[in-house]
Amino acid sequence: MTEINALDTLWVLLAALLVFFMQAGFAMVEAGLIRSKNAGNVLMKNFIDFCFAALAFYIFGYAIMFGGTGPIVGTEGWFLFGVQGTVGSLPVEAFWFFQAAFAGTAATIVSGAMAERMRFVSYMAYSFLISAFIYPVVGHWVWGGGWLSTLKFYDFAGSTVVHGVGGMAALIGAWMLGPRIGRFNKDGSPNVISGHNIPLVTIGVFILWFGWYGFNAGSALGMSDAALVARVAINTTLAPAAGAITAMLMSWVLFGKPDLSITLNGALAGLVGITAPCAIVGSGASIFIGIIAGILVVYGVIGLNKLKIDDPVGAVPVHGLCGIWGTLAVGIFGQAALGAPSNGLFYGGGFGPLGTQLLGVVACLGFVAVTMGIVFKAIDAVLGLRVPRETELRGLDLDEHGMDSYSGFQIFTTE
Amino acid sequence: MTEINALDTLWVLLAALLVFFMQAGFAMVEAGLIRSKNAGNVLMKNFIDFCFAALAFYIFGYAIMFGGTGPIVGTEGWFLFGVQGTVGSLPVEAFWFFQAAFAGTAATIVSGAMAERMRFVSYMAYSFLISAFIYPVVGHWVWGGGWLSTLKFYDFAGSTVVHGVGGMAALIGAWMLGPRIGRFNKDGSPNVISGHNIPLVTIGVFILWFGWYGFNAGSALGMSDAALVARVAINTTLAPAAGAITAMLMSWVLFGKPDLSITLNGALAGLVGITAPCAIVGSGASIFIGIIAGILVVYGVIGLNKLKIDDPVGAVPVHGLCGIWGTLAVGIFGQAALGAPSNGLFYGGGFGPLGTQLLGVVACLGFVAVTMGIVFKAIDAVLGLRVPRETELRGLDLDEHGMDSYSGFQIFTTE
Amino acid sequence: MTEINALDTLWVLLAALLVFFMQAGFAMVEAGLIRSKNAGNVLMKNFIDFCFAALAFYIFGYAIMFGGTGPIVGTEGWFLFGVQGTVGSLPVEAFWFFQAAFAGTAATIVSGAMAERMRFVSYMAYSFLISAFIYPVVGHWVWGGGWLSTLKFYDFAGSTVVHGVGGMAALIGAWMLGPRIGRFNKDGSPNVISGHNIPLVTIGVFILWFGWYGFNAGSALGMSDAALVARVAINTTLAPAAGAITAMLMSWVLFGKPDLSITLNGALAGLVGITAPCAIVGSGASIFIGIIAGILVVYGVIGLNKLKIDDPVGAVPVHGLCGIWGTLAVGIFGQAALGAPSNGLFYGGGFGPLGTQLLGVVACLGFVAVTMGIVFKAIDAVLGLRVPRETELRGLDLDEHGMDSYSGFQIFTTE
Repeated sequence: MTEINALDTLWVLLAALLVFFMQAGFAMVEAGLIRSKNAGNVLMKNFIDFCFAALAFYIFGYAIMFGGTGPIVGTEGWFLFGVQGTVGSLPVEAFWFFQAAFAGTAATIVSGAMAERMRFVSYMAYSFLISAFIYPVVGHWVWGGGWLSTLKFYDFAGSTVVHGVGGMAALIGAWMLGPRIGRFNKDGSPNVISGHNIPLVTIGVFILWFGWYGFNAGSALGMSDAALVARVAINTTLAPAAGAITAMLMSWVLFGKPDLSITLNGALAGLVGITAPCAIVGSGASIFIGIIAGILVVYGVIGLNKLKIDDPVGAVPVHGLCGIWGTLAVGIFGQAALGAPSNGLFYGGGFGPLGTQLLGVVACLGFVAVTMGIVFKAIDAVLGLRVPRETELRGLDLDEHGMDSYSGFQIFTTE
Repeated sequence: MTEINALDTLWVLLAALLVFFMQAGFAMVEAGLIRSKNAGNVLMKNFIDFCFAALAFYIFGYAIMFGGTGPIVGTEGWFLFGVQGTVGSLPVEAFWFFQAAFAGTAATIVSGAMAERMRFVSYMAYSFLISAFIYPVVGHWVWGGGWLSTLKFYDFAGSTVVHGVGGMAALIGAWMLGPRIGRFNKDGSPNVISGHNIPLVTIGVFILWFGWYGFNAGSALGMSDAALVARVAINTTLAPAAGAITAMLMSWVLFGKPDLSITLNGALAGLVGITAPCAIVGSGASIFIGIIAGILVVYGVIGLNKLKIDDPVGAVPVHGLCGIWGTLAVGIFGQAALGAPSNGLFYGGGFGPLGTQLLGVVACLGFVAVTMGIVFKAIDAVLGLRVPRETELRGLDLDEHGMDSYSGFQIFTTE
Repeated sequence: MTEINALDTLWVLLAALLVFFMQAGFAMVEAGLIRSKNAGNVLMKNFIDFCFAALAFYIFGYAIMFGGTGPIVGTEGWFLFGVQGTVGSLPVEAFWFFQAAFAGTAATIVSGAMAERMRFVSYMAYSFLISAFIYPVVGHWVWGGGWLSTLKFYDFAGSTVVHGVGGMAALIGAWMLGPRIGRFNKDGSPNVISGHNIPLVTIGVFILWFGWYGFNAGSALGMSDAALVARVAINTTLAPAAGAITAMLMSWVLFGKPDLSITLNGALAGLVGITAPCAIVGSGASIFIGIIAGILVVYGVIGLNKLKIDDPVGAVPVHGLCGIWGTLAVGIFGQAALGAPSNGLFYGGGFGPLGTQLLGVVACLGFVAVTMGIVFKAIDAVLGLRVPRETELRGLDLDEHGMDSYSGFQIFTTE
């Protein structure tokens, strides 16, 4: 047990609350991108999943993720019992807060992809299970001393561990739920279902970007290497800027006009892409990583449409596809000379070659695909994943919560 | 006069600006929970009360609260004249900023409870008086070296000093104003008057929770005890999470569906409840405190309806009732072994038993009830508390400010 | 090259991300103050201009602003090549991030003044050019070792360098674009075109004020003088509070009712006014500076109407007029005894008399007026500044982006 460093603690607490605030960003983005009749439902899901994540990570998640260095799972510290003192230079409570906020992020990514048609009670069950068990297992493998950390698989702030996990869960969920009524025509061609409040989406993306500085730079777990923290900050600026501009240009070329939603998702794509490599690439590489992410996210949306998978907010392309890209980018652009630090506790430095990165992606996302498939299947059997057709048509706000998100406003909704 | 500690200063400035940002949270929550025809008015009240609070606390409040250790009031430092150097390890300007932001919070709690029917000019008068005189007196008693601090009454971040004061002022005000037109039927049964913009409410609660980390953890007034700050952070996460889930379940059981507004208020209830004891309870106790707060807030809303007191946003249950609960929880769950620090300047450590906590609550809230009763009575006599009936029907935005908060939108409003 | 100071780095990174977050504030203020049919367009402009600013400042701006101490421009460090190590006690990447966020602020001020009628592609060209070249030249003169810094022209956080530059560019742009259709009658009298979403405006101003603490207090470039940082914080609280109250009273006297938009702009006016002198004036002076700013902003709006210049959000009075006022206030209220620090790298301390301050204002804003006049003229010739009449009537959202910012909502729009 080392001494507590007050400056490191301040930094990590600040970062943790920035990551916490990202919940507000997700909530606004998702609510704005769907129809008003379901806005309250998705806000409720975004709010309550953080609450469940906090308790689930307190009761089970922390122990699984950080309770010992076994290859597969940790096994100590349920309810934080017996967990005290420090983790590195941090009081354990500060470290817990930062990690719990991460668990909340992984959980909340899914709500958007399954929006406008998933039962609330089923969502609650899902969000508890991913925060308590599934995310922590992957987290243990990479950051908690598990087998992937032994192989030097490297994911600084969670392109795979957080965003890949959330994105893969979103893909499985959106696929199992099926598309919203009216989303695809009989011939398979997609219809656009417009979001109802674009200013909400915009402030949500600003909040996410703002919080992402905590997500990435806080993953240094302190200020002992201030130059590294500053490098993370510049990369977390340039990659999303490049991603947004790229996605905007793509939308202009492919669809005829510069599209705001695509541009905003381009910024998020750049952020997800730079999350894994942010500490070990130069500023030029971060721009390149952002550009590729901006391209990927647009083709990802197109690809999902082809597969007739309905992801109302683009969670799968943003978090899943660009999470994979960011993790692989470590193996392509990572510079050992930059020090290759890690936020893993039991990680000795250095990072793996492209093959190791690919192995880690496949292992983590494969695990999530299988376990989330089982989880969603089980929830479907017990509670039912999808709301009844009439509820979907009327809107989940009314049937599931007895509310109207915009009381008094005259609103026409499709279908 | 001690040396300035730069790290402590940074932490307290950061905390102060998080508390400042809570003003935005209050504004959004209150605006969203009322009808659109009064949204601009309540935004104006929330914005301007911070401005008045800043000046009032500069001119009068700081001197009353911190200008000497008399048992009842301080008497030095009007306009900060003669106030210089340091308070503990902080430049006095940093300490002032943190305290002024607190004064603004106490003031702004009331605007929601009196929304949709109180004259703007009267609200300005109220907000000046509470920030200049009433809040600072209570603050002096507890944190400024006054008689309650001598008795070891303990309120780490202000369950009573800030939230109890605001909640009691809100109760007196809402009671004196009377309910909105149409809120209660002739037989006494309540009608629901729905809020007009639930996404605003949601982002507001996220902002409040985000800012609350500054409110609670900043009350350590520095980073010298980093473990304490981290403990505050984990408790400020778990209590609202437990409060939100509890209130949601309560709404489900009592009203048939999981209600978003009640869930959000449950989180705020948990935050208010953990505010006093956050530094001296363990994480398990914080969850229990949050659960009780989540129950209290729901029954508080029901109780106000029975009393035919109209509190459009639930300020009285959230801040008043849970403020009392949090203060008493110190006497129930407080662990001396955790060090019992205090943010009071002249406070020697340790905390009182339940009886002392109860005495403090009664004294502080009794003082507020009496003085605010006089203040509101006097304002009513001179300026009139309530807008004319026609103004209330048309909306305060139009008559009091000549504005339309949603120009162009087609909106039906009740009554 | 000095040692990196981790505490200073943390502070500047925190400040930088607060300044980054101001982008969200600008976006919300501008979107809310215009009609819904153009909301998406102005959000897009606000979002993408930061992205362009980040890349432009990376490629060209930083080199021009900080690449050597020539009197007119710097010439080293394009793409940050060869720029490494530290700036003062900061890693260069942290310093870059803070400065890039400032460049983004200068750029984004203009979008509001030119809202509802400027082509998107032309706005992109403009935003790249101001961030790459025009802002950095002025920045070099004052903060980068250029000729004005040699003369001891003093602008602590950018009343002139950022807000004056943005406000002057906004004036030139709004004047060259001409007013919106229907904004002025044939007899020259103005019509009010109401903003469509006042809650957005309010949260935007709260975000701006919140971020401004980073803008001003971060300009200390570290925590080595914690008393100075705290002084900046108190002044950044009192000046906007005084500005808001003053502007509110002005609106009450001049127009009959306390106006929310004017009140909010009064706070921004106070913030712009205190930006230059915040480190070297006492708290009493900051209140006075805020009061004058609150008066100026109201008369500025009236004056623009007289000149038939259409500035939909009041960017010119807020940023331009109050930017000038704040810079001159240095010469009037600045106290050398307070230490007269500077955030300029090559600046020896002390500040100029009123004459020097006036010279600096004239030189900087004259340079901007001339160069921006040429830029806008050139863009107009090549791309066209203004959208076609039909596009303006239908709304820029539909024609320029193929979107509807509030899908489903029933909205009537003027003209």
